[in-house]
Amino acid sequence: MAREYSIGFAPSWVASLRPSEPQGSDLLIAERQKSQIDIDRLACLLYTEQGVEMQRRILDVLQHDPVFDKGGNYFDSRIERFKTSVARAKRLHQLHQMHNWSEDELKWAIELIGEPTAFSLHWKGFLPTLREQGTPEQHELFLRKAESMEIIGCYAQTELGHGSNARKLETTATWNPDDRTFTLHSPHLTAAKWWVGTMGLCANHAMVMARLILNGEDYGPHPFLCQIRDLITHTPLDGVYVGDIGPKLGYNTVDNGFLFLNHVKIPHINMLAKFSRVEYESNVYVAPESPAMVYGTLTMLRAALVSESARNLARGTTIAVRYCAVRRQCSDPDSEDKNTELQVLDYSMVQFRLFPLVAESFALNFTGQAMIEFYHSARTALAVGQSNNGCGSSGQRANALFSELHATSCGLKALATSAAAEGLEVCRRACGGHGYSSFAGIGAVYMDYLPSQTYEGDNYVLTQQTANYLLKIALSILKGDAPSNITAKNLAAYTEKKHTPVHFDLDRDKDILAAFGWRAAYLTFDLLRRRDNDQKPKNDLLVDYSRLSSAHSQFLVLTSFHDKLKGPDTLSKIDPESLAVLWKLFRLYALTRVISASHEFYVSSALQVAEVVRADQETMLRLLKEIRPHAVRLVDVWKLPDWMLDSSLGRYDGKVYEDLFHRASQLNPLNRFAMDPRPGGGVLIRGGGADAKSRL
Amino acid sequence: MAREYSIGFAPSWVASLRPSEPQGSDLLIAERQKSQIDIDRLACLLYTEQGVEMQRRILDVLQHDPVFDKGGNYFDSRIERFKTSVARAKRLHQLHQMHNWSEDELKWAIELIGEPTAFSLHWKGFLPTLREQGTPEQHELFLRKAESMEIIGCYAQTELGHGSNARKLETTATWNPDDRTFTLHSPHLTAAKWWVGTMGLCANHAMVMARLILNGEDYGPHPFLCQIRDLITHTPLDGVYVGDIGPKLGYNTVDNGFLFLNHVKIPHINMLAKFSRVEYESNVYVAPESPAMVYGTLTMLRAALVSESARNLARGTTIAVRYCAVRRQCSDPDSEDKNTELQVLDYSMVQFRLFPLVAESFALNFTGQAMIEFYHSARTALAVGQSNNGCGSSGQRANALFSELHATSCGLKALATSAAAEGLEVCRRACGGHGYSSFAGIGAVYMDYLPSQTYEGDNYVLTQQTANYLLKIALSILKGDAPSNITAKNLAAYTEKKHTPVHFDLDRDKDILAAFGWRAAYLTFDLLRRRDNDQKPKNDLLVDYSRLSSAHSQFLVLTSFHDKLKGPDTLSKIDPESLAVLWKLFRLYALTRVISASHEFYVSSALQVAEVVRADQETMLRLLKEIRPHAVRLVDVWKLPDWMLDSSLGRYDGKVYEDLFHRASQLNPLNRFAMDPRPGGGVLIRGGGADAKSRL
Repeated sequence: MAREYSIGFAPSWVASLRPSEPQGSDLLIAERQKSQIDIDRLACLLYTEQGVEMQRRILDVLQHDPVFDKGGNYFDSRIERFKTSVARAKRLHQLHQMHNWSEDELKWAIELIGEPTAFSLHWKGFLPTLREQGTPEQHELFLRKAESMEIIGCYAQTELGHGSNARKLETTATWNPDDRTFTLHSPHLTAAKWWVGTMGLCANHAMVMARLILNGEDYGPHPFLCQIRDLITHTPLDGVYVGDIGPKLGYNTVDNGFLFLNHVKIPHINMLAKFSRVEYESNVYVAPESPAMVYGTLTMLRAALVSESARNLARGTTIAVRYCAVRRQCSDPDSEDKNTELQVLDYSMVQFRLFPLVAESFALNFTGQAMIEFYHSARTALAVGQSNNGCGSSGQRANALFSELHATSCGLKALATSAAAEGLEVCRRACGGHGYSSFAGIGAVYMDYLPSQTYEGDNYVLTQQTANYLLKIALSILKGDAPSNITAKNLAAYTEKKHTPVHFDLDRDKDILAAFGWRAAYLTFDLLRRRDNDQKPKNDLLVDYSRLSSAHSQFLVLTSFHDKLKGPDTLSKIDPESLAVLWKLFRLYALTRVISASHEFYVSSALQVAEVVRADQETMLRLLKEIRPHAVRLVDVWKLPDWMLDSSLGRYDGKVYEDLFHRASQLNPLNRFAMDPRPGGGVLIRGGGADAKSRL
Repeated sequence: MAREYSIGFAPSWVASLRPSEPQGSDLLIAERQKSQIDIDRLACLLYTEQGVEMQRRILDVLQHDPVFDKGGNYFDSRIERFKTSVARAKRLHQLHQMHNWSEDELKWAIELIGEPTAFSLHWKGFLPTLREQGTPEQHELFLRKAESMEIIGCYAQTELGHGSNARKLETTATWNPDDRTFTLHSPHLTAAKWWVGTMGLCANHAMVMARLILNGEDYGPHPFLCQIRDLITHTPLDGVYVGDIGPKLGYNTVDNGFLFLNHVKIPHINMLAKFSRVEYESNVYVAPESPAMVYGTLTMLRAALVSESARNLARGTTIAVRYCAVRRQCSDPDSEDKNTELQVLDYSMVQFRLFPLVAESFALNFTGQAMIEFYHSARTALAVGQSNNGCGSSGQRANALFSELHATSCGLKALATSAAAEGLEVCRRACGGHGYSSFAGIGAVYMDYLPSQTYEGDNYVLTQQTANYLLKIALSILKGDAPSNITAKNLAAYTEKKHTPVHFDLDRDKDILAAFGWRAAYLTFDLLRRRDNDQKPKNDLLVDYSRLSSAHSQFLVLTSFHDKLKGPDTLSKIDPESLAVLWKLFRLYALTRVISASHEFYVSSALQVAEVVRADQETMLRLLKEIRPHAVRLVDVWKLPDWMLDSSLGRYDGKVYEDLFHRASQLNPLNRFAMDPRPGGGVLIRGGGADAKSRL
């Protein structure tokens, strides 16, 4: 009765089957014909022309290199995946050298590979710290070796017991005046460095953040370079206990590690000394001249996270929109015809879930661009300020700019990374049951992306910084000495008009922007009143701090989006039809936020309930319908290649079911096994590998 | 310079370290002393006394059985985990037989094991279908063998191309009058059965849902029992192509499978024939007498999912609340003392994230209890109705009850499973960075729980059923022939009062409930008006269908919560202090929903903006503070044992850091490897197993 065949290879009667009509590939061709928006030009708006070209060029290198073959990604065990990850990281270093890639090019390569890279913390944490905070002498001694990866480093700040509160780190670096060394030490179990990427198995050096103790006095955390493994044998050094912290929900291609140090001595030169230092001869501590500069790097990292969030979200929208155009389920509830099934993308509920995310991906991308421009202009201003010794109006201006940049980057980083994480999960669920398969290509991205909610500052903690800054500016406006920047201007405009009736028209783009500015300003002054006049404990206001940060950050996102669409570059390069679609995305993004936070618009008298009802029941629906024909092209704009997406559902050609079947039946290693599931059965598993065939 | 030691075992200077003060264990002892709420009695309220005893007894069996040892769970590869899962499923079957466990006891065992069980779809899908839809003759032939697991079955409905729309399933069962057989066939690639749990490698039979074709006519989907593998060799039968569909985000302890059938013939007896059948002699199709009864089982499954959702959420809150009581970070923002760090649970932001979930876990538990009671009373009414041949008032009443039960179970299943999934992720993130470690014990639960958003009905699709039902009842009220049930009563109350001014006081529990009823009723009639008077296309209203279902379901949850606290059982058994805390949870849950959906309360004129502001800024904060001292005990009430939670962060004794360290350094297999990370290095990995030691 039983016929023999290898389960790994489908019998011919299966291999000859096709999906039922209509074919996914035909559906996507039809989708792309519905719209005329200019994918190439819009892609340049997202990435610049050089960016598009760079992405194409690097993809070409990577996808032909067998080390980066993604075939095992969804199947391999953690240990296998980590081995592969290290091999890829090594190869990436070689390619980096060979092609003389820039920082930007390396970043693109890492994004295209699509998984956290084993050496990423060497590149993103260790090297920048060494560069920015090391003296020329330290660069000479360490930086060259680190660039050639003779020194492989990690950035060891977080401890088992402490993350957000750097001042309470338990690791100490005690200055020994006798022999001019520092002693690094972990006094408790909770003092162990923990979560440090690239530390678990790879790094031979660590940039240890430790509290400097000098003459019994505590000067707070400073960076110390500490060798942890032998450069040749890779064996941990004396007094060093180091290892991997174990499996995580994602990021398992990186060896997040722990580190205990037992009275480890390092020479004076190993304390990074550009900003603060211990004088070699006098044992005196020298504090940094410009604290703004110290946190400049972190600010830059946060700004970059905003752009990254946009592209991460776009991975999700690309996959979900394409698949929802291929997938058909149930018939139009208003139609008599119960046989013809609608593309899932035609349901208003699906549009309502997905299109605001498409809009958000563009919004965050433009915000990221604006942040990076802001960062560079602040750096320039700082340089001018420093050439004046930090004194005078230009020095003050630079400090004010950096405060604004810092506060902005905190709130936007929190908003953008949260939005991208939530959005990815919405995209995954919009794919229905198949979204749960690894082959959907969203789950792993989401899991790898989750730490963004915590790294470079916990999102909840960051929002407090933004809110604190807003309160400070609000106070300075009341005192009449506010700086000149977008935050202060918005708050000032509110104080001028707050006693006259306001009216914002949600059909006008400028009014939309103004309504968001108004709401953020109202919440700022309301919070200030409660804190200062009502003397509420700050701990009682933390929820409102967080809401204020979101409201202000949304205002900033919309401002960036608005300004980008009004910008000369856009007007000269983008055709009117494409531009009109982008404006619809702007409105959709704004209205989605109005609806979900309508209470704040009512409280601030920016909008009436009837206006939100109309926006919700009419305008939104119209926008969704107008965007619908452009949906597939709008995700094509991101030009995320199939090789990067590694998704059955998000295939550019729409061959979704063929791909799912191929991966399940031909690649899936579990099908090399055969079970004896009967409770009485003695042998649990027969088969695996060649064995599975031989038994048949 | 390099000292040799095995990385898998910490050197003595590390092993002697303790966490810095205060110790987690002391903090949790102090927490438990702060509150006097009666954990044992509250546990009985959640589970009944028998339930608590059952849980304890079964835990005792499982945790001493080496097959269920959880040591490898966070480390093993998919293939290893699946092997273990099958071994556990077999053992579970043996224990089931040996201890003569009831269905409830088996469910508890599965919950305590804490992972989806390899045979779960045999138990939860295949057996109930056979029982409920098989005739006595079919029971004789198949059910006994299935109960003893000679027949191992799965429930094969979902196809590669179709999930929610069962009418469009592509698999056909064609009746052959010549030889009195059915031919099962997969005509397209998209006709493949897909996602079928226990099918991939385990099952030897499938309950195939296929469209019955009789005399060229299509009678829609019906259940057919089809043998797919040989009972002895376990080899797939002729015309059967079956396998595992590949890795998923979770649920990897189950072999979700695919199945292609190539003109497979099965005898007449293999069509389950209790409700509908093909007459053996006459070739005539006989339709089911009582459709309500057919979907009775599904309704019961959904009701059970509500209770399950509560316990799943409670896993998250137990871990997060305990860990946030142990974790300390930063000092009170209002205090001068910057050295003493607050327990994270003292921050209002953390309370705002976690305590509403604690409240929700209780709310959902009581709702689940109410649903199951409702189900049993509907069954009783149906039995009475059937004895009257489904005619007369008792038959109508039973049908009306089943309609209400069906609609209620759809909306509540969607609300409860979504709430639990979102809530688990909120709990995980509230654990900060460590929440991302597998050892936190939340991530895997969340990933395994995600399919609940889709199975037993996609949550978005289900909400349409609930809203459709509400519209139907609203119409019947306008016509004056409404049934007598909670939904109809609420809608009728609204129509009576809607022209008089209403006022609800959020400080009064009855008013809270009434405000939720009012809002749901307003949304119902508003939607009815837009659909029928304004003739809006249904597709344009889907978002509002979904919102309506949520609003109505929240009203039902609050009603169950309210009724439980007012119930005689509660009043007689629960002491006043504990009861007072439960009422605070009731209010907190309600206010959280008011704040997040305030727009709907404004539109329906149930509340004014100023009232919500007060609820948000004053009442909420007061409730959070009042609940704070009871937080740890409130999660203790669930009595989820450490063995089940398998969480470093959620340990009952608070030894969080010791546990994280132990698992990372002593259990983590990655630390058996040593890397050569240098780009020039030839060997990628040295070590692994004994090898890792020998190199030292």
